[in-house]
Formats: sequence, structure tokens, C-alpha cells
Amino acid sequence: MERDSVKPSDAASATWNIDQVVAALRHSREVEHNVRHQGRIRELPSRKALLEVLDGLCAILFPTHYGRPDLNESNIDYFVGNQLHQTLSVLQDQVRRGLLFVSEGDEREDTEANHSAYDITTRFAAQLPAIRAQFFTDLQAAYQGDPAATSSSEILLCYPGMTAVIYYRVAHALYELGARLPARLISDIAHSTTGIDIHPAANIGGYFFIDHGTGVVVGETCRIGRGVKLYHGVTLGARSFAKDEAGHIVKGGKRHPDVGDHVTIYPNSTILGGETTIGENSTIGANVFLMHSIAPNSLVIYEEKSLTILNKTAKRNHGNQEWSI
Amino acid sequence: MERDSVKPSDAASATWNIDQVVAALRHSREVEHNVRHQGRIRELPSRKALLEVLDGLCAILFPTHYGRPDLNESNIDYFVGNQLHQTLSVLQDQVRRGLLFVSEGDEREDTEANHSAYDITTRFAAQLPAIRAQFFTDLQAAYQGDPAATSSSEILLCYPGMTAVIYYRVAHALYELGARLPARLISDIAHSTTGIDIHPAANIGGYFFIDHGTGVVVGETCRIGRGVKLYHGVTLGARSFAKDEAGHIVKGGKRHPDVGDHVTIYPNSTILGGETTIGENSTIGANVFLMHSIAPNSLVIYEEKSLTILNKTAKRNHGNQEWSI
Amino acid sequence: MERDSVKPSDAASATWNIDQVVAALRHSREVEHNVRHQGRIRELPSRKALLEVLDGLCAILFPTHYGRPDLNESNIDYFVGNQLHQTLSVLQDQVRRGLLFVSEGDEREDTEANHSAYDITTRFAAQLPAIRAQFFTDLQAAYQGDPAATSSSEILLCYPGMTAVIYYRVAHALYELGARLPARLISDIAHSTTGIDIHPAANIGGYFFIDHGTGVVVGETCRIGRGVKLYHGVTLGARSFAKDEAGHIVKGGKRHPDVGDHVTIYPNSTILGGETTIGENSTIGANVFLMHSIAPNSLVIYEEKSLTILNKTAKRNHGNQEWSI
Repeated sequence: MERDSVKPSDAASATWNIDQVVAALRHSREVEHNVRHQGRIRELPSRKALLEVLDGLCAILFPTHYGRPDLNESNIDYFVGNQLHQTLSVLQDQVRRGLLFVSEGDEREDTEANHSAYDITTRFAAQLPAIRAQFFTDLQAAYQGDPAATSSSEILLCYPGMTAVIYYRVAHALYELGARLPARLISDIAHSTTGIDIHPAANIGGYFFIDHGTGVVVGETCRIGRGVKLYHGVTLGARSFAKDEAGHIVKGGKRHPDVGDHVTIYPNSTILGGETTIGENSTIGANVFLMHSIAPNSLVIYEEKSLTILNKTAKRNHGNQEWSI
Repeated sequence: MERDSVKPSDAASATWNIDQVVAALRHSREVEHNVRHQGRIRELPSRKALLEVLDGLCAILFPTHYGRPDLNESNIDYFVGNQLHQTLSVLQDQVRRGLLFVSEGDEREDTEANHSAYDITTRFAAQLPAIRAQFFTDLQAAYQGDPAATSSSEILLCYPGMTAVIYYRVAHALYELGARLPARLISDIAHSTTGIDIHPAANIGGYFFIDHGTGVVVGETCRIGRGVKLYHGVTLGARSFAKDEAGHIVKGGKRHPDVGDHVTIYPNSTILGGETTIGENSTIGANVFLMHSIAPNSLVIYEEKSLTILNKTAKRNHGNQEWSI
Repeated sequence: MERDSVKPSDAASATWNIDQVVAALRHSREVEHNVRHQGRIRELPSRKALLEVLDGLCAILFPTHYGRPDLNESNIDYFVGNQLHQTLSVLQDQVRRGLLFVSEGDEREDTEANHSAYDITTRFAAQLPAIRAQFFTDLQAAYQGDPAATSSSEILLCYPGMTAVIYYRVAHALYELGARLPARLISDIAHSTTGIDIHPAANIGGYFFIDHGTGVVVGETCRIGRGVKLYHGVTLGARSFAKDEAGHIVKGGKRHPDVGDHVTIYPNSTILGGETTIGENSTIGANVFLMHSIAPNSLVIYEEKSLTILNKTAKRNHGNQEWSI
């Protein structure tokens, strides 16, 4: 540390050469590395607001679990209606921001975005009973699929897989209705909270259960049937990306696998490719790496003979190192 | 987007057809997909309150690291005593809620739950010095096991594995005392914070160290010896679930492996099965998938010859695709 | 639950035998398992304050994305300058705490720590434009590397990999300037938020992209070239630890791999060892475990023939168990 650059330690009087830093950042921002929005001011969708929406939706769907414990026949509909009004107000504003934000240089009128946001929010609200019905099947699958689960309440309160799946079902509905940026933000909230990364465009049937869940990745163009169980670390990902003549990756296209009904995939297996299909009722073992399709009713594991098992005692004499692999 | 459904954009006057949504949700809740608690009102255990309990317990166990920096001989016991009183008050209420919440239709009196909660909380408090002593060995194992660790303080402040282990030791004590739902919530808080998922019922000896930790899963019926080191992504999981004659999974039963003293398991290995035992002093390499027992002093890795190494240059000529695997 | 130990359930009058617990904790703390700082009082670096610093730095580097939407030519520099002043004040205090905290029994004067903290903070501020320039290349790599990415805004808002990389670039600069404990805390904040664990001492070139990211570990002594893409679950870790004559692990030393330019590593692969080098333009498949060097332009995957694919139908007849692997 050079002593000649030392300034008084009182932060209130410190300057840190702020003027030069501001000027250099301006140059970076405006000249060299511009990623600012052109033209009009755009409000960003807010992660905090969407978290409030998700909490509200959980309370609406399961009032006595996520809402208030003192709800009964005489007051529960008032609670749900009031919560709906609050939650949809916030959601509509986020949808509006998302519509304006993703438009690249488009001159879409604010009023048009307002109308679309209302329309999307209304259609989304109408889907809530169906979302609840589908999530109810997920809850059943969790209870039936995990011997450690002792009650539906424990699953609703303690299972990250349930949080990820309800957030996915909400995000998927919004995505399909055209609210893509809020949907992506919701999937990132789920990812950050649970370690489970499901793209909102993926299609997933009922009775879906993710156990433990950390590291699960379900890609944008996956199609997953009914009654599928994934353990943590399972990837349903892309294998290769088509490129155009300039060498740029082509956006869009089917890149992720299809998984049939009643398939179980054990921890840390990686399945890649848009033409890869896992046939119904199949089981994929743990740590499998798969790039081709599997027939229905298959069991896929690595041969145990590819494992090497040595006695370490002799090796230990070789030197001054912990063996460690 | 259909234009005919557009309503005024002012959210204050928007209705989103809330009445229909409330009615449809009521039907789903009451008729089709009922998961409400029957009968009496139950307060849910609160994730936020348990997070407060965990922060309080860390400050109690390590006052100068997690509590206040200005503690000295003359004031530290007052700080600890005061923090204990606050923390145990909150904990006792959470334990009480948990006891009432998990009872399925049981008519257990509130007073009985109060008594049990006090009893459990008192027994738990008496175990705190022993929990601290055991966690002290975990701290030693971390310092001795990671060349990147420069001090105990760095480990206490920066290592997610330490957070996961102290939360596990607290959750395990509560679980054994009968406070199972709060214990499960604590393990889910640890999971969400650190990516490490340890079931509170698992038995884990001293000098336990988890490095990095994201994706670690330790199942309900695991028994882990002393001096075990796990890297991130290690699973000690269930292999198969016994079913009853109706085809339902049987709850309970030994389903997860035993790991002997001084075993090290490298990243992303998956070990499954209730009869699987990893003998003491063994080392399991990375990305291994294991379903059978291993003798003491073993080293288990995949043979390198099962790897294929190609030169990509030729393949690149095959088409207009990034190779990508 | 023994009934004779029951006390009144009113928490306000409960004692939980606090006196004995305080005394036993004192014994553990002072006699048996002492990890208190010796001598002088030290304030801990604060995770909350560093999170505030990170939010401030993101707003400084990308004002219209992470700062305020209503910024324009006439007010943006004032916003950036004001944010810089606030953020650097907090950072300087954290750097000062870190310098005092990690000193082991050293009698370094507070004033000296103040001077060093000012010096480090000033040098760090001067590097912000260069950090922005490098992160701009990371942003380009993300857009070019993920077909699912639709805009730079979506990437900045929704990609955990971008959060992890900007936090890493900030932490690395602080680490190199000597603010090691705040740097480690920032890397743990990134780890907890994104599941991506990059040691701040690692060296990583531009155009760096981590997709999905959960479970990625990049060790302390890694050197990573330009244009590298890592998928989730990739480990660049240590293989073995040198020990001294007393059997203790030697701290420091090159323990983690080098990765050449334009290398892509697919999900859940584990590469270990300080002498392991992945040559430029190579691709490592998913779930690979590698402990030796790979030549440039290589493709490394497991042979598919080591997979076993069985038809489950027959096996199902064997008993009363779900097959499950």
C-alpha cells in the first residue's frame, strides 16, 4: 500500500476521486459499452413486487396454509376476494412494465400496454382455479412419492419442490398469455429460492414432483408428461445450437428433451437434445449422461464394472499427500 | 390479444371478474380439491420466526462473532442470558404451533401443547452447551480440511457448510425432542440459504465438514460417523421404496446409507440404499453412482478408459452446428 | 414427555433454567472450546452492509437497469456520483473492519487500517470503468451463448449467472487490493443468491458465461481464459492436498485447474487438480470426471457403451418394490 496516496480517514470528507470515476463511467456507458435503453423511459419490472404477487397468489390458492389461520366459512371468501384485488393490481402493473420493457425501440403506446396488461391479468385470474386443480395433483404426487413426507401440510410448508412447481405453474400461465418478462423473473425468483430452474415456456403435465430439487434445470422447449418424478440435479437441456451463416446461434427451435408419463429420473442425471425422448414408465439412474432416445419401460444405469475399487492402504505409502481421489 | 375484452386501465376500477374467480376457487377448495384443516383453527409455524430463532441461537453460541463486537468479561453473560430469554420465548411458541399443527384431527388440548412445548424448549436449552461443543469439532474439521481457509472467523462468517451444519445440529436436537415440524422448517431454511439439504432425523457424528455444499442431500435414515467430509453435490439417498399390498409407498424404514468414520466423498457422487455402507477411511471419487457397500479403506473411482477423447477439428467440418458435446 | 417437569405455559414467566445454560455456555466458551478473539474488540464485516454495497455498485454500473428508470442526460451523472459517494462510504468501512478483523493478534493501529481502507477503496473506485468494460463482454457472451436469451435487459434482470459474474469481478478486484475478508463475504453472498461459488482469488478472462449455474464451483487457484462457457454443476476443484510433516494440510499452493480460451464445459462435470489443463477450444461433456490434462480442440465424453439399458417389465415381477434404479 503506498503511503503517499493516503487521505484523511473521515469518510465524510473522502472524495475517492469520484469526479474522474463518474466521467470514466460516462464514457464507458455512452461511448464504448452502451446497453442503455434508447429513447423513452421505461420502468423495470420489480423482483420485489413479483415476490409480493407470488406470496399473494399462494394465500389465494391455499388460504389457511399461506394466508391466515383464523379463516372460516363466514370470512374466507372475503379474504380471498380482497387478496385477489390487491395481488392482481400489483401483477397488472408488472405485466404492463414487462410489455413496455421488452419492446425494442417500439413506440407502443402506454394506453395499449395498459389495455393488454388488464386483458392478460383478467385471463390469468380466470385460470387460477385450474392452476389450483393441477397443483393439487402435484401435491398428491409428492405425498405418494416421498416416504419421508408425513402430511400435506408438511409438504406445503417445507418442500422447495412444491414452491418451485407452484411458481412454475403461475409463470407458465403468464408466459403463455404473453407476459414473458414477468414470467422469466418469477422463474428466477424460484431458482434463487429453491435451486430449481424451470423455464416458464416448458410444458409439464400434472402429478409432477421434484424431490430435494437443488440443481434441477428444465429447458425452454421441454415437454414433460404426467406423473413424472425428478430428483435434484437432473438436467433436461440443450445439446447443440443451430447457427446461421454468420455463425450466430439461431434463437428458438426445439432444443430440449421430451419425457413421457410416469418417468422417474434419479439425481444428477443429464439428458440433452431436442430429439431425445424418454419413453413412458422408464427409470433413469443417477449420474447418467444421455443424448439419445430411450424406449418405454426402460431402466438406464451405468454398468458397475466401469467402477474401479482399490484398497487405499498400499497407496498411502506413496508419499506425503492425502490420497484424495 | 382480443380488443373487445379491454377494460379501463385504471387498476382501481378494474374488476378482473373477481366474483367468478372467488366462486370457482371456493368450489375447488371445498368440493374438488380440499386440503383444508378440518375443525379447529391452527396457527402455522412461521418461517420468519424460526429464522429469528436461528439468528438468536448463533448469537448465543458464538456471541462475539454473531452477536455484538463490544462484549467483554463484564457484559457477555448478560447478553447471552437476555438473548436466550428472547430466543427461547419465540422457539417455545413455534414448538407449540408445530405440535398442534401436525396433529391430524386430534383433540389435543392447547394447554397440553403448551406444557409439552415448554418441556421441549427447556430440554433443548439444556443441550445448547453440548451442541456448541460438537459444532466446535465441525469448525476444527473445516479449518483442517480446506487449504483455502485462513481463520476460524473466516469459516464462521463465510462458509455455507458451517451454516448448514449448525442449523442441522439445532434441527436434529429439536426433532429428537419431538418438535418435528419446526425441525423440518429449519432444515428447509438451511436448504434455501445454502443449497444443502440435511433431513433433521439423520444422525451425524462430530468433525463433520461440507465444503461448498450446493446440492448435498442427506436422507432421513442416514447414519454418518465422525470426521466425514462431503463435497458439494453428494447425495446419500434412498434406492427403492417398499410398497404395501395396495401399491402405496410404506412410510418409514431404513432407506439411506451409512457412512463410516473418516470417509471423504468427492463432488456430485450419488450413494443410494438403506443397506449400503461405506466402510471407514474410504474415499469415493467424483460423479460416482454407487448402490452397494464398500469395504473400509477403499478408493472408488470410474475407470478413465471409459472416457472418450476425440479431436474436434475434423468433426467441425460436418455441418452448420456448434458441436457441443 | 415427563409431566413432572412441566412449568406454567406463560412464556413471560418461563425460565427454562436459563442460569444453568448461561453458566455452561460460559464454560464451553472460556475453557473448553474457545474461539473468541483475543484482546481488542473487533467489529465484524457485515453481510447486510456488503449487500447494500453490491446493490449500489450495480446501480452505478448500469444506472437505468439497476438504478432508476427516470434517468436522462441531465441527471444521470448526479445519480451516479451520489450513489458512488454513498456506496464507497459503506465499502470503506467494511474494508477497514476486514483489515482489523483478519489480523491475528496484531496490534495494527486503527488509524493505519483507516488509511489502508481509504487507499483500497480509492483504487477500487478507479477500477470500476474497467470492471464495467469486462462485464460488458460477459453480457455479450451470454446473449450469444444462450438461444433462450431474448435481450440484454432480460439477461441483466433474470440470469443468476450474470449476478454471480459481476459479484465475482467486484470481489476479485477487492481481493487483489487486499480486502480479502469482504471479498470472501461477497463471494458467499453470490453463492447463497445464485448457487454459484467462485473464489475471489480465481483469475477469469472476459466473455465469461455461466448458464443456469447452480452448483458451479471455481476454486481459489483456477486460471480461466477468455470466452469460456460453464454450465451448472461444473466443478474446477482441488485433487489432493500437500501435508507437512505433522500431517497438517499445507495452506496455499496451486491446487485447481487451468482452462484455456473458448472452452465449454457441460453440466455436472468435475475437473480436479492444480496441474490439470483443459486446452483451448475443447468441449467437456456432461457428468465427466477428469483428473488429467486435455489437449486443445478436444471433445471429452463418456462412452455410451458403458450405459446399461434394460427392459423393466420383467424385473417388475420380482417383488413388492418399486424398481427405482
